[in-house]
Amino acid sequence: MGFWKSLFSATDMATAAKPDPAERSAAAMGMTTSSGSRIVFSVDRDIDLYELEELCDAVGWSRRPLRKVKKAIQYSFLVVSMWEERGAQRRLVGFSRATSDHAFNATIWDVVVHPDYQGKGLGKALMKYMIKRLRSEDISNITLFADPQVVEFYRGLGFMSDPEGIKGMFWYPD
Amino acid sequence: MGFWKSLFSATDMATAAKPDPAERSAAAMGMTTSSGSRIVFSVDRDIDLYELEELCDAVGWSRRPLRKVKKAIQYSFLVVSMWEERGAQRRLVGFSRATSDHAFNATIWDVVVHPDYQGKGLGKALMKYMIKRLRSEDISNITLFADPQVVEFYRGLGFMSDPEGIKGMFWYPD
Repeated sequence: MGFWKSLFSATDMATAAKPDPAERSAAAMGMTTSSGSRIVFSVDRDIDLYELEELCDAVGWSRRPLRKVKKAIQYSFLVVSMWEERGAQRRLVGFSRATSDHAFNATIWDVVVHPDYQGKGLGKALMKYMIKRLRSEDISNITLFADPQVVEFYRGLGFMSDPEGIKGMFWYPD
Repeated sequence: MGFWKSLFSATDMATAAKPDPAERSAAAMGMTTSSGSRIVFSVDRDIDLYELEELCDAVGWSRRPLRKVKKAIQYSFLVVSMWEERGAQRRLVGFSRATSDHAFNATIWDVVVHPDYQGKGLGKALMKYMIKRLRSEDISNITLFADPQVVEFYRGLGFMSDPEGIKGMFWYPD
């Protein structure tokens, strides 16, 4: 169903272990790849929507009206983009955002890593960065809705499914 | 675990069927109870936080700092309170709120109906009102996290648990 692809990447995200120092570095500022480029994170919302659409196209998500994507970015509590920097050039390679009440709860949506950059621990680094930022804002309850094929990925990051029998539910029109 | 009680009522909410006309009336403006009082909904965020705390106390939720509750109400996308009106007097008998990106997704939190008013279809009317308001704002994906004892209640309202294997997940510190 294309709809769910608009929420989460249907492609398998990297769960490969990464040395801790590299991860810490990634979460802090950026990390150097084997090819000499750097991976950096940004919370700047001024993202080229066409570039973001290209990234989402690459993982097979169904297209969404850019007007609504723009609004969703504007009203998300946290928006994190992940970039490969090579000299003066940079390329959008990952994205994620979270809605929140700014007090108790945050819900993470639209986690995506470009297929060319999967299997390198970047999905993990992106999520760790999201969690770190949310925790720094005193959000205690971080939630998400995970496609079956990424449940183990999120479990490896400390997410629990159905804790104490709590079920994620989605409303459908009668 | 007290924490989850802060998210959802641990008490069983009413699933009793209610005549459709009454429900429609409730969703629109208010409905008259058997004792002659009226049940009305409000989206006004200017709620007496002590009155809200009293309501949450009545269902056994653990207390939360009012400063944070105030912030959560301020930054929620939709806040609905349910009142019993009797002449010039009114009493807070239900509450619910939703976070959202104002475009695609909304997540409903803190659904509560006072125990004295449960079993009368008011929880159902409150949720129908929430759904109606969210749909009128063009939100297509309405989600929530349901305690095991209220999963059936939400199912009766058109919510599906784990559709296509999608799991609700919660982050816990390592």
